[in-house]
Amino acid sequence: MPDGLEQLKMVMERQTPNMGTLLDMTTEVLEPGRAVFGLVTRPEFGNPIGTLHGGIYSTLLDSAMACAVHASLPEGASYTTLELKVNFVRPVKVDGVKLTCEGTTIHVGGRVATAEGRVTDDQGRLVAHGTTTCMLFRPS
Amino acid sequence: MPDGLEQLKMVMERQTPNMGTLLDMTTEVLEPGRAVFGLVTRPEFGNPIGTLHGGIYSTLLDSAMACAVHASLPEGASYTTLELKVNFVRPVKVDGVKLTCEGTTIHVGGRVATAEGRVTDDQGRLVAHGTTTCMLFRPS
Amino acid sequence: MPDGLEQLKMVMERQTPNMGTLLDMTTEVLEPGRAVFGLVTRPEFGNPIGTLHGGIYSTLLDSAMACAVHASLPEGASYTTLELKVNFVRPVKVDGVKLTCEGTTIHVGGRVATAEGRVTDDQGRLVAHGTTTCMLFRPS
Amino acid sequence: MPDGLEQLKMVMERQTPNMGTLLDMTTEVLEPGRAVFGLVTRPEFGNPIGTLHGGIYSTLLDSAMACAVHASLPEGASYTTLELKVNFVRPVKVDGVKLTCEGTTIHVGGRVATAEGRVTDDQGRLVAHGTTTCMLFRPS
Repeated sequence: MPDGLEQLKMVMERQTPNMGTLLDMTTEVLEPGRAVFGLVTRPEFGNPIGTLHGGIYSTLLDSAMACAVHASLPEGASYTTLELKVNFVRPVKVDGVKLTCEGTTIHVGGRVATAEGRVTDDQGRLVAHGTTTCMLFRPS
Repeated sequence: MPDGLEQLKMVMERQTPNMGTLLDMTTEVLEPGRAVFGLVTRPEFGNPIGTLHGGIYSTLLDSAMACAVHASLPEGASYTTLELKVNFVRPVKVDGVKLTCEGTTIHVGGRVATAEGRVTDDQGRLVAHGTTTCMLFRPS
Repeated sequence: MPDGLEQLKMVMERQTPNMGTLLDMTTEVLEPGRAVFGLVTRPEFGNPIGTLHGGIYSTLLDSAMACAVHASLPEGASYTTLELKVNFVRPVKVDGVKLTCEGTTIHVGGRVATAEGRVTDDQGRLVAHGTTTCMLFRPS
Repeated sequence: MPDGLEQLKMVMERQTPNMGTLLDMTTEVLEPGRAVFGLVTRPEFGNPIGTLHGGIYSTLLDSAMACAVHASLPEGASYTTLELKVNFVRPVKVDGVKLTCEGTTIHVGGRVATAEGRVTDDQGRLVAHGTTTCMLFRPS
Protein backbone atom coordinates (compact mmCIF):
# COMPACT_ATOMS: atom_id res chain seq x y z
CA MET A 1 0.00 0.00 0.00
CA PRO A 2 1.43 3.43 -0.87
CA ASP A 3 2.45 5.97 1.78
CA GLY A 4 1.20 9.56 1.67
CA LEU A 5 3.88 10.82 -0.70
CA GLU A 6 3.30 7.95 -3.15
CA GLN A 7 -0.48 8.46 -3.00
CA LEU A 8 -0.04 12.13 -3.85
CA LYS A 9 2.25 11.40 -6.79
CA MET A 10 -0.15 8.82 -8.19
CA VAL A 11 -3.11 11.15 -7.89
CA MET A 12 -1.25 14.01 -9.52
CA GLU A 13 -0.19 11.94 -12.50
CA ARG A 14 -3.81 11.14 -13.29
CA GLN A 15 -4.53 14.77 -14.12
CA THR A 16 -8.28 14.47 -13.90
CA PRO A 17 -9.83 17.95 -13.87
CA ASN A 18 -9.34 19.71 -10.51
CA MET A 19 -8.40 23.09 -9.04
CA GLY A 20 -4.78 22.49 -9.95
CA THR A 21 -5.57 21.99 -13.61
CA LEU A 22 -8.17 24.83 -13.63
CA LEU A 23 -5.53 27.30 -12.40
CA ASP A 24 -2.57 25.67 -14.19
CA MET A 25 -0.76 25.12 -10.91
CA THR A 26 2.60 23.40 -11.22
CA THR A 27 4.04 20.99 -8.67
CA GLU A 28 7.63 21.98 -8.00
CA VAL A 29 8.53 20.02 -4.88
CA LEU A 30 6.76 17.19 -3.08
CA GLU A 31 8.57 15.55 -0.20
CA PRO A 32 7.73 14.51 3.36
CA GLY A 33 6.76 17.67 5.27
CA ARG A 34 7.21 20.03 2.33
CA ALA A 35 5.38 20.93 -0.89
CA VAL A 36 5.97 23.76 -3.36
CA PHE A 37 3.50 24.84 -6.03
CA GLY A 38 3.73 27.52 -8.72
CA LEU A 39 1.09 29.55 -10.56
CA VAL A 40 1.14 32.40 -13.08
CA THR A 41 -1.49 35.12 -12.53
CA ARG A 42 -4.13 35.84 -15.19
CA PRO A 43 -6.93 38.43 -15.45
CA GLU A 44 -9.56 35.83 -14.56
CA PHE A 45 -7.80 35.30 -11.19
CA GLY A 46 -8.56 38.90 -10.21
CA ASN A 47 -11.17 40.45 -7.99
CA PRO A 48 -13.48 43.08 -9.49
CA ILE A 49 -10.92 45.78 -8.57
CA GLY A 50 -8.27 44.11 -10.74
CA THR A 51 -5.78 42.75 -8.22
CA LEU A 52 -5.32 39.08 -7.39
CA HIS A 53 -8.33 37.58 -5.59
CA GLY A 54 -7.77 36.36 -2.04
CA GLY A 55 -9.13 33.01 -3.17
CA ILE A 56 -6.05 32.40 -5.31
CA TYR A 57 -3.58 32.85 -2.44
CA SER A 58 -5.89 30.70 -0.31
CA THR A 59 -6.01 27.95 -2.94
CA LEU A 60 -2.23 27.93 -3.27
CA LEU A 61 -1.68 27.90 0.50
CA ASP A 62 -4.34 25.27 1.17
CA SER A 63 -2.82 23.03 -1.52
CA ALA A 64 0.80 23.41 -0.44
CA MET A 65 0.17 23.09 3.29
CA ALA A 66 -2.20 20.12 2.94
CA CYS A 67 0.22 18.33 0.59
CA ALA A 68 3.11 18.95 3.00
CA VAL A 69 1.04 17.16 5.65
CA HIS A 70 -0.15 14.41 3.30
CA ALA A 71 3.37 13.72 2.06
CA SER A 72 4.50 13.11 5.64
CA LEU A 73 1.95 10.37 6.37
CA PRO A 74 2.74 6.64 6.41
CA GLU A 75 0.81 4.11 4.35
CA GLY A 76 -2.76 3.56 5.45
CA ALA A 77 -3.09 7.03 6.98
CA SER A 78 -5.26 9.85 5.71
CA TYR A 79 -6.18 13.39 6.77
CA THR A 80 -8.76 16.12 6.47
CA THR A 81 -8.19 19.88 6.65
CA LEU A 82 -10.10 21.51 9.50
CA GLU A 83 -9.17 25.14 9.04
CA LEU A 84 -7.05 27.58 7.05
CA LYS A 85 -5.78 31.06 7.99
CA VAL A 86 -4.30 33.42 5.40
CA ASN A 87 -2.63 36.84 5.71
CA PHE A 88 -2.42 39.01 2.60
CA VAL A 89 0.59 41.30 2.86
CA ARG A 90 1.13 42.71 -0.63
CA PRO A 91 -1.21 43.10 -3.64
CA VAL A 92 -0.28 41.19 -6.81
CA LYS A 93 -1.15 42.07 -10.40
CA VAL A 94 -3.02 39.68 -12.66
CA ASP A 95 -0.84 40.10 -15.73
CA GLY A 96 1.48 37.13 -15.60
CA VAL A 97 3.24 37.27 -12.24
CA LYS A 98 4.81 33.93 -11.33
CA LEU A 99 3.93 33.03 -7.75
CA THR A 100 5.60 30.31 -5.70
CA CYS A 101 3.96 28.82 -2.63
CA GLU A 102 5.87 26.69 -0.15
CA GLY A 103 4.10 24.71 2.55
CA THR A 104 5.95 23.08 5.44
CA THR A 105 4.70 21.11 8.41
CA ILE A 106 5.08 22.66 11.87
CA HIS A 107 3.75 19.75 13.95
CA VAL A 108 2.80 16.22 12.94
CA GLY A 109 1.33 14.36 15.89
CA GLY A 110 -0.78 11.27 16.31
CA ARG A 111 -4.14 12.84 15.53
CA VAL A 112 -3.41 16.42 14.47
CA ALA A 113 -0.94 18.14 12.15
CA THR A 114 -0.30 21.83 11.57
CA ALA A 115 1.57 23.50 8.73
CA GLU A 116 2.56 26.93 7.54
CA GLY A 117 2.97 28.39 4.08
CA ARG A 118 4.48 31.38 2.28
CA VAL A 119 3.65 32.80 -1.13
CA THR A 120 6.33 34.84 -2.88
CA ASP A 121 6.29 36.68 -6.20
CA ASP A 122 8.83 36.47 -9.02
CA GLN A 123 11.03 39.01 -7.24
CA GLY A 124 11.11 36.90 -4.10
CA ARG A 125 8.87 39.25 -2.12
CA LEU A 126 6.47 37.77 0.41
CA VAL A 127 2.88 38.41 -0.75
CA ALA A 128 0.86 36.15 1.56
CA HIS A 129 1.36 33.62 4.32
CA GLY A 130 -0.81 31.20 6.24
CA THR A 131 -1.28 28.29 8.59
CA THR A 132 -3.55 25.26 8.64
CA THR A 133 -4.81 22.56 11.03
CA CYS A 134 -5.42 18.99 9.80
CA MET A 135 -6.95 16.01 11.56
CA LEU A 136 -5.13 12.73 10.95
CA PHE A 137 -6.52 9.20 10.68
CA ARG A 138 -3.81 6.65 11.31
CA PRO A 139 -4.19 2.90 10.87
CA SER A 140 -4.84 1.33 14.28
CA MET B 1 -19.10 60.13 -6.21
CA PRO B 2 -20.55 56.65 -5.57
CA ASP B 3 -20.66 55.02 -2.13
CA GLY B 4 -19.33 51.50 -1.56
CA LEU B 5 -22.53 49.74 -2.56
CA GLU B 6 -22.83 51.73 -5.79
CA GLN B 7 -19.14 51.12 -6.61
CA LEU B 8 -19.65 47.40 -6.20
CA LYS B 9 -22.71 47.33 -8.42
CA MET B 10 -20.95 49.30 -11.16
CA VAL B 11 -17.93 47.03 -11.07
CA MET B 12 -20.06 43.90 -11.16
CA GLU B 13 -22.04 45.05 -14.18
CA ARG B 14 -18.85 45.41 -16.19
CA GLN B 15 -18.22 41.68 -16.09
CA THR B 16 -14.60 41.85 -17.10
CA PRO B 17 -12.96 38.45 -16.51
CA ASN B 18 -12.38 37.78 -12.80
CA MET B 19 -12.68 35.02 -10.20
CA GLY B 20 -16.44 35.51 -10.13
CA THR B 21 -16.77 34.86 -13.85
CA LEU B 22 -14.18 32.03 -13.80
CA LEU B 23 -16.21 30.15 -11.19
CA ASP B 24 -19.66 31.31 -12.43
CA MET B 25 -20.45 32.88 -9.08
CA THR B 26 -23.82 34.59 -8.88
CA THR B 27 -24.55 37.70 -6.82
CA GLU B 28 -27.74 37.10 -4.88
CA VAL B 29 -27.78 39.94 -2.34
CA LEU B 30 -25.68 43.06 -2.05
CA GLU B 31 -26.66 45.54 0.65
CA PRO B 32 -24.86 47.54 3.34
CA GLY B 33 -23.24 45.04 5.71
CA ARG B 34 -24.40 41.93 3.85
CA ALA B 35 -23.58 40.06 0.64
CA VAL B 36 -24.73 36.67 -0.63
CA PHE B 37 -23.10 34.75 -3.47
CA GLY B 38 -23.99 31.44 -5.08
CA LEU B 39 -21.91 28.84 -6.92
CA VAL B 40 -22.55 25.37 -8.38
CA THR B 41 -19.77 22.82 -7.85
CA ARG B 42 -18.00 21.25 -10.85
CA PRO B 43 -15.30 18.56 -11.16
CA GLU B 44 -12.64 21.21 -11.87
CA PHE B 45 -13.35 22.75 -8.42
CA GLY B 46 -12.18 19.57 -6.73
CA ASN B 47 -8.96 18.60 -5.01
CA PRO B 48 -7.09 15.55 -6.29
CA ILE B 49 -9.13 13.35 -3.91
CA GLY B 50 -12.36 14.43 -5.60
CA THR B 51 -14.07 16.59 -2.97
CA LEU B 52 -14.45 20.36 -3.14
CA HIS B 53 -11.10 22.17 -2.83
CA GLY B 54 -10.67 24.40 0.21
CA GLY B 55 -9.83 27.22 -2.19
CA ILE B 56 -13.44 27.31 -3.41
CA TYR B 57 -14.94 27.83 0.05
CA SER B 58 -12.21 30.39 0.70
CA THR B 59 -12.98 32.25 -2.53
CA LEU B 60 -16.68 32.34 -1.73
CA LEU B 61 -16.12 33.49 1.85
CA ASP B 62 -13.49 36.08 0.92
CA SER B 63 -15.83 37.50 -1.74
CA ALA B 64 -18.95 37.62 0.42
CA MET B 65 -17.29 38.98 3.54
CA ALA B 66 -15.25 41.63 1.68
CA CYS B 67 -18.32 42.75 -0.28
CA ALA B 68 -20.35 43.00 2.93
CA VAL B 69 -17.68 45.37 4.24
CA HIS B 70 -17.34 47.26 0.94
CA ALA B 71 -21.12 47.73 0.65
CA SER B 72 -21.17 49.40 4.06
CA LEU B 73 -18.64 52.12 3.19
CA PRO B 74 -19.54 55.74 2.38
CA GLU B 75 -18.41 57.45 -0.80
CA GLY B 76 -14.71 58.15 -1.01
CA ALA B 77 -13.80 55.27 1.30
CA SER B 78 -11.97 52.09 0.33
CA TYR B 79 -10.61 48.98 2.05
CA THR B 80 -8.12 46.16 1.81
CA THR B 81 -8.45 42.65 3.23
CA LEU B 82 -5.73 41.82 5.75
CA GLU B 83 -6.57 38.27 6.66
CA LEU B 84 -9.07 35.46 6.18
CA LYS B 85 -9.86 32.46 8.40
CA VAL B 86 -11.92 29.52 7.14
CA ASN B 87 -13.28 26.42 8.92
CA PHE B 88 -14.30 23.44 6.78
CA VAL B 89 -17.00 21.47 8.57
CA ARG B 90 -18.47 19.12 5.96
CA PRO B 91 -17.09 17.79 2.64
CA VAL B 92 -18.99 18.73 -0.54
CA LYS B 93 -19.18 16.80 -3.81
CA VAL B 94 -18.15 18.34 -7.10
CA ASP B 95 -21.10 17.14 -9.15
CA GLY B 96 -23.40 20.13 -9.22
CA VAL B 97 -24.11 21.06 -5.60
CA LYS B 98 -25.49 24.59 -5.29
CA LEU B 99 -23.64 26.44 -2.52
CA THR B 100 -24.77 29.72 -0.97
CA CYS B 101 -22.37 31.95 0.92
CA GLU B 102 -23.57 34.79 3.13
CA GLY B 103 -21.16 37.40 4.47
CA THR B 104 -22.17 39.88 7.19
CA THR B 105 -20.19 42.57 8.97
CA ILE B 106 -19.48 42.10 12.68
CA HIS B 107 -17.73 45.43 13.35
CA VAL B 108 -17.27 48.46 11.11
CA GLY B 109 -15.11 51.05 12.84
CA GLY B 110 -13.07 54.01 11.70
CA ARG B 111 -10.03 52.12 10.46
CA VAL B 112 -10.88 48.44 10.75
CA ALA B 113 -13.83 46.23 9.87
CA THR B 114 -14.47 42.57 10.60
CA ALA B 115 -17.01 40.24 9.03
CA GLU B 116 -18.15 36.64 9.24
CA GLY B 117 -19.49 34.26 6.63
CA ARG B 118 -21.32 30.97 6.31
CA VAL B 119 -21.45 28.58 3.36
CA THR B 120 -24.45 26.24 3.13
CA ASP B 121 -25.29 23.51 0.64
CA ASP B 122 -28.54 23.01 -1.24
CA GLN B 123 -30.03 21.19 1.74
CA GLY B 124 -29.27 24.14 4.04
CA ARG B 125 -26.46 22.35 5.86
CA LEU B 126 -23.48 24.38 7.01
CA VAL B 127 -20.37 23.27 5.10
CA ALA B 128 -17.85 26.02 5.95
CA HIS B 129 -17.64 29.27 7.88
CA GLY B 130 -15.11 32.03 8.31
CA THR B 131 -14.11 35.48 9.46
CA THR B 132 -12.06 38.29 7.96
CA THR B 133 -10.28 41.50 8.98
CA CYS B 134 -10.22 44.53 6.65
CA MET B 135 -8.37 47.84 6.94
CA LEU B 136 -10.46 50.87 5.97
CA PHE B 137 -9.35 54.10 4.29
CA ARG B 138 -11.88 56.84 4.92
CA PRO B 139 -11.81 60.28 3.31
CA SER B 140 -10.27 62.74 5.78
CA MET C 1 -21.84 8.82 34.27
CA PRO C 2 -22.31 12.59 33.90
CA ASP C 3 -22.78 14.27 30.53
CA GLY C 4 -20.65 17.27 29.50
CA LEU C 5 -22.82 19.86 31.21
CA GLU C 6 -22.89 17.94 34.48
CA GLN C 7 -19.12 17.36 34.33
CA LEU C 8 -18.57 21.09 33.91
CA LYS C 9 -20.82 21.99 36.82
CA MET C 10 -19.10 19.49 39.10
CA VAL C 11 -15.67 20.75 38.17
CA MET C 12 -16.65 24.38 38.71
CA GLU C 13 -18.09 23.75 42.14
CA ARG C 14 -14.76 22.35 43.31
CA GLN C 15 -13.08 25.73 42.93
CA THR C 16 -9.55 24.44 42.98
CA PRO C 17 -7.16 27.20 41.87
CA ASN C 18 -7.35 27.82 38.12
CA MET C 19 -7.44 30.65 35.56
CA GLY C 20 -11.07 31.32 36.44
CA THR C 21 -10.27 31.87 40.12
CA LEU C 22 -7.03 33.79 39.31
CA LEU C 23 -9.01 36.32 37.22
CA ASP C 24 -12.21 36.17 39.32
CA MET C 25 -14.24 35.05 36.34
CA THR C 26 -17.90 34.45 37.04
CA THR C 27 -20.03 31.77 35.36
CA GLU C 28 -23.27 33.38 34.24
CA VAL C 29 -24.79 30.79 31.90
CA LEU C 30 -23.86 27.17 31.22
CA GLU C 31 -26.17 25.21 28.96
CA PRO C 32 -25.77 22.87 25.98
CA GLY C 33 -24.13 24.85 23.19
CA ARG C 34 -23.80 28.10 25.15
CA ALA C 35 -21.68 29.51 27.97
CA VAL C 36 -21.42 33.04 29.35
CA PHE C 37 -18.64 34.27 31.62
CA GLY C 38 -18.06 37.65 33.27
CA LEU C 39 -14.91 39.43 34.44
CA VAL C 40 -14.11 42.86 35.89
CA THR C 41 -10.91 44.49 34.58
CA ARG C 42 -8.06 45.35 36.98
CA PRO C 43 -4.69 47.07 36.49
CA GLU C 44 -2.84 43.74 36.61
CA PHE C 45 -4.83 42.62 33.54
CA GLY C 46 -3.21 45.37 31.48
CA ASN C 47 -0.39 45.38 28.98
CA PRO C 48 2.58 47.68 29.64
CA ILE C 49 0.74 50.48 27.78
CA GLY C 50 -2.14 50.36 30.24
CA THR C 51 -5.01 48.90 28.20
CA LEU C 52 -6.43 45.42 28.61
CA HIS C 53 -3.97 42.70 27.54
CA GLY C 54 -4.99 40.57 24.56
CA GLY C 55 -4.47 37.55 26.78
CA ILE C 56 -7.52 38.47 28.87
CA TYR C 57 -9.91 38.57 25.91
CA SER C 58 -8.32 35.32 24.71
CA THR C 59 -8.79 33.66 28.10
CA LEU C 60 -12.44 34.71 28.25
CA LEU C 61 -13.14 33.58 24.69
CA ASP C 62 -11.27 30.30 25.03
CA SER C 63 -13.19 29.55 28.25
CA ALA C 64 -16.63 30.46 26.94
CA MET C 65 -16.28 28.77 23.56
CA ALA C 66 -14.73 25.57 24.96
CA CYS C 67 -17.41 25.34 27.67
CA ALA C 68 -20.16 25.84 25.06
CA VAL C 69 -18.73 22.82 23.24
CA HIS C 70 -18.18 20.79 26.42
CA ALA C 71 -21.72 21.48 27.67
CA SER C 72 -23.12 20.02 24.44
CA LEU C 73 -21.38 16.64 24.77
CA PRO C 74 -23.09 13.43 25.92
CA GLU C 75 -21.77 11.34 28.79
CA GLY C 76 -18.52 9.58 28.10
CA ALA C 77 -17.38 12.12 25.50
CA SER C 78 -14.51 14.56 25.86
CA TYR C 79 -12.76 17.19 23.73
CA THR C 80 -9.56 19.11 23.25
CA THR C 81 -9.17 22.62 21.81
CA LEU C 82 -7.03 22.68 18.67
CA GLU C 83 -6.98 26.37 17.85
CA LEU C 84 -8.31 29.78 18.84
CA LYS C 85 -8.70 32.96 16.76
CA VAL C 86 -9.41 36.34 18.37
CA ASN C 87 -10.16 39.77 16.87
CA PHE C 88 -9.69 42.82 19.08
CA VAL C 89 -12.03 45.57 17.95
CA ARG C 90 -12.04 48.15 20.76
CA PRO C 91 -9.54 48.89 23.56
CA VAL C 92 -10.78 48.44 27.15
CA LYS C 93 -9.56 50.20 30.28
CA VAL C 94 -8.26 48.29 33.28
CA ASP C 95 -10.12 50.25 35.95
CA GLY C 96 -13.12 48.08 36.70
CA VAL C 97 -14.94 47.55 33.41
CA LYS C 98 -17.35 44.62 33.58
CA LEU C 99 -16.89 42.40 30.52
CA THR C 100 -19.28 39.67 29.42
CA CYS C 101 -18.21 36.90 27.08
CA GLU C 102 -20.72 34.64 25.35
CA GLY C 103 -19.61 31.49 23.54
CA THR C 104 -21.96 29.52 21.28
CA THR C 105 -21.39 26.42 19.18
CA ILE C 106 -21.51 26.80 15.40
CA HIS C 107 -21.05 23.14 14.44
CA VAL C 108 -20.98 20.02 16.60
CA GLY C 109 -20.18 16.98 14.49
CA GLY C 110 -18.93 13.49 15.20
CA ARG C 111 -15.26 14.33 15.57
CA VAL C 112 -15.01 18.11 15.37
CA ALA C 113 -16.85 21.07 16.87
CA THR C 114 -16.50 24.78 16.17
CA ALA C 115 -17.77 27.71 18.22
CA GLU C 116 -17.79 31.48 18.16
CA GLY C 117 -17.67 34.05 20.93
CA ARG C 118 -18.29 37.73 21.58
CA VAL C 119 -16.97 39.94 24.37
CA THR C 120 -18.97 43.07 25.24
CA ASP C 121 -18.31 45.81 27.75
CA ASP C 122 -20.68 47.20 30.37
CA GLN C 123 -22.25 49.49 27.77
CA GLY C 124 -23.01 46.55 25.49
CA ARG C 125 -20.32 47.47 22.95
CA LEU C 126 -18.49 44.67 21.18
CA VAL C 127 -14.81 44.73 22.21
CA ALA C 128 -13.54 41.40 20.86
CA HIS C 129 -14.78 38.30 19.07
CA GLY C 130 -13.38 34.93 18.14
CA THR C 131 -13.78 31.39 16.91
CA THR C 132 -12.36 28.04 17.96
CA THR C 133 -11.94 24.48 16.65
CA CYS C 134 -12.20 21.49 19.01
CA MET C 135 -11.57 17.80 18.39
CA LEU C 136 -14.13 15.48 19.98
CA PHE C 137 -13.68 12.02 21.46
CA ARG C 138 -16.97 10.18 21.58
CA PRO C 139 -17.55 6.82 23.26
CA SER C 140 -17.49 4.09 20.59
CA MET D 1 12.19 60.64 21.17
CA PRO D 2 12.68 56.90 21.78
CA ASP D 3 12.21 54.29 19.08
CA GLY D 4 10.01 51.22 19.64
CA LEU D 5 12.69 49.14 21.30
CA GLU D 6 13.64 51.95 23.71
CA GLN D 7 9.96 52.59 24.53
CA LEU D 8 9.48 48.93 25.38
CA LYS D 9 12.53 48.83 27.63
CA MET D 10 11.44 51.98 29.49
CA VAL D 11 7.95 50.63 30.02
CA MET D 12 9.21 47.28 31.25
CA GLU D 13 11.55 48.81 33.79
CA ARG D 14 8.65 50.62 35.43
CA GLN D 15 7.09 47.35 36.54
CA THR D 16 3.67 48.76 37.26
CA PRO D 17 1.19 45.91 37.74
CA ASN D 18 0.32 44.22 34.45
CA MET D 19 -0.21 40.77 32.92
CA GLY D 20 3.54 40.24 32.85
CA THR D 21 3.86 40.80 36.59
CA LEU D 22 0.62 38.87 37.36
CA LEU D 23 2.01 35.78 35.61
CA ASP D 24 5.68 36.37 36.55
CA MET D 25 6.70 36.49 32.91
CA THR D 26 10.37 37.11 32.30
CA THR D 27 11.78 39.07 29.39
CA GLU D 28 14.62 37.07 27.87
CA VAL D 29 15.28 38.82 24.55
CA LEU D 30 14.04 42.11 23.15
CA GLU D 31 15.49 43.23 19.83
CA PRO D 32 14.12 44.61 16.57
CA GLY D 33 11.83 41.98 15.09
CA ARG D 34 12.25 39.46 17.90
CA ALA D 35 11.11 39.03 21.50
CA VAL D 36 11.42 36.07 23.86
CA PHE D 37 9.48 35.67 27.11
CA GLY D 38 9.56 32.96 29.75
CA LEU D 39 6.99 31.72 32.27
CA VAL D 40 6.79 28.91 34.82
CA THR D 41 3.42 27.12 35.03
CA ARG D 42 1.42 27.13 38.30
CA PRO D 43 -1.85 25.47 39.35
CA GLU D 44 -3.72 28.79 39.03
CA PHE D 45 -2.78 28.88 35.31
CA GLY D 46 -4.81 25.73 34.69
CA ASN D 47 -8.23 25.10 33.27
CA PRO D 48 -10.77 23.23 35.40
CA ILE D 49 -9.44 19.93 33.98
CA GLY D 50 -5.97 20.65 35.36
CA THR D 51 -3.89 21.30 32.23
CA LEU D 52 -2.56 24.69 31.17
CA HIS D 53 -5.35 27.08 30.12
CA GLY D 54 -5.33 28.22 26.50
CA GLY D 55 -5.32 31.79 27.80
CA ILE D 56 -1.76 31.36 29.08
CA TYR D 57 -0.32 30.30 25.71
CA SER D 58 -2.34 33.12 24.14
CA THR D 59 -0.98 35.67 26.61
CA LEU D 60 2.60 34.55 25.98
CA LEU D 61 2.18 34.56 22.20
CA ASP D 62 0.34 37.88 22.12
CA SER D 63 3.08 39.46 24.25
CA ALA D 64 6.02 38.06 22.31
CA MET D 65 4.63 38.71 18.85
CA ALA D 66 3.42 42.23 19.65
CA CYS D 67 6.77 43.12 21.27
CA ALA D 68 8.64 41.76 18.23
CA VAL D 69 6.61 44.18 16.10
CA HIS D 70 6.91 47.06 18.58
CA ALA D 71 10.68 46.63 18.88
CA SER D 72 11.01 46.99 15.10
CA LEU D 73 9.30 50.42 14.93
CA PRO D 74 11.12 53.73 14.55
CA GLU D 75 10.60 56.63 16.93
CA GLY D 76 7.22 58.27 16.73
CA ALA D 77 5.50 55.14 15.46
CA SER D 78 2.97 53.04 17.34
CA TYR D 79 0.80 49.98 16.68
CA THR D 80 -2.32 48.14 17.73
CA THR D 81 -2.96 44.39 17.56
CA LEU D 82 -5.92 43.50 15.33
CA GLU D 83 -6.03 39.74 15.69
CA LEU D 84 -4.32 36.72 17.17
CA LYS D 85 -4.42 33.06 16.10
CA VAL D 86 -3.13 30.27 18.33
CA ASN D 87 -2.68 26.52 17.74
CA PHE D 88 -2.35 24.27 20.78
CA VAL D 89 -0.33 21.19 19.88
CA ARG D 90 0.60 19.54 23.18
CA PRO D 91 -0.91 19.76 26.68
CA VAL D 92 1.29 21.19 29.44
CA LYS D 93 1.13 20.47 33.17
CA VAL D 94 0.68 23.22 35.74
CA ASP D 95 3.31 22.05 38.18
CA GLY D 96 6.30 24.20 37.36
CA VAL D 97 7.06 23.67 33.68
CA LYS D 98 9.28 26.42 32.27
CA LEU D 99 7.84 27.67 28.97
CA THR D 100 9.70 29.84 26.48
CA CYS D 101 7.86 31.86 23.86
CA GLU D 102 9.65 33.42 20.89
CA GLY D 103 7.93 35.95 18.66
CA THR D 104 9.42 37.07 15.33
CA THR D 105 8.11 39.43 12.68
CA ILE D 106 7.14 37.97 9.31
CA HIS D 107 6.26 41.21 7.49
CA VAL D 108 6.70 44.83 8.59
CA GLY D 109 5.19 47.17 6.02
CA GLY D 110 4.03 50.76 6.03
CA ARG D 111 0.67 50.21 7.69
CA VAL D 112 0.53 46.55 8.67
CA ALA D 113 2.87 44.10 10.35
CA THR D 114 2.51 40.35 10.90
CA ALA D 115 4.44 38.11 13.24
CA GLU D 116 4.61 34.48 14.29
CA GLY D 117 5.42 32.82 17.59
CA ARG D 118 6.35 29.47 19.07
CA VAL D 119 6.02 28.23 22.64
CA THR D 120 8.32 25.42 23.74
CA ASP D 121 8.55 23.55 27.03
CA ASP D 122 11.65 22.88 29.14
CA GLN D 123 12.48 19.86 26.96
CA GLY D 124 12.40 21.97 23.81
CA ARG D 125 9.14 20.47 22.55
CA LEU D 126 6.74 22.70 20.66
CA VAL D 127 3.54 23.11 22.70
CA ALA D 128 1.77 25.97 20.87
CA HIS D 129 2.30 28.34 17.97
CA GLY D 130 0.55 31.36 16.55
CA THR D 131 0.41 34.38 14.28
CA THR D 132 -0.79 37.95 14.69
CA THR D 133 -1.74 40.99 12.58
CA CYS D 134 -0.92 44.52 13.78
CA MET D 135 -1.89 47.91 12.34
CA LEU D 136 0.94 50.46 12.35
CA PHE D 137 0.77 54.22 12.84
CA ARG D 138 3.87 55.86 11.45
CA PRO D 139 4.76 59.55 11.82
CA SER D 140 3.75 61.36 8.62
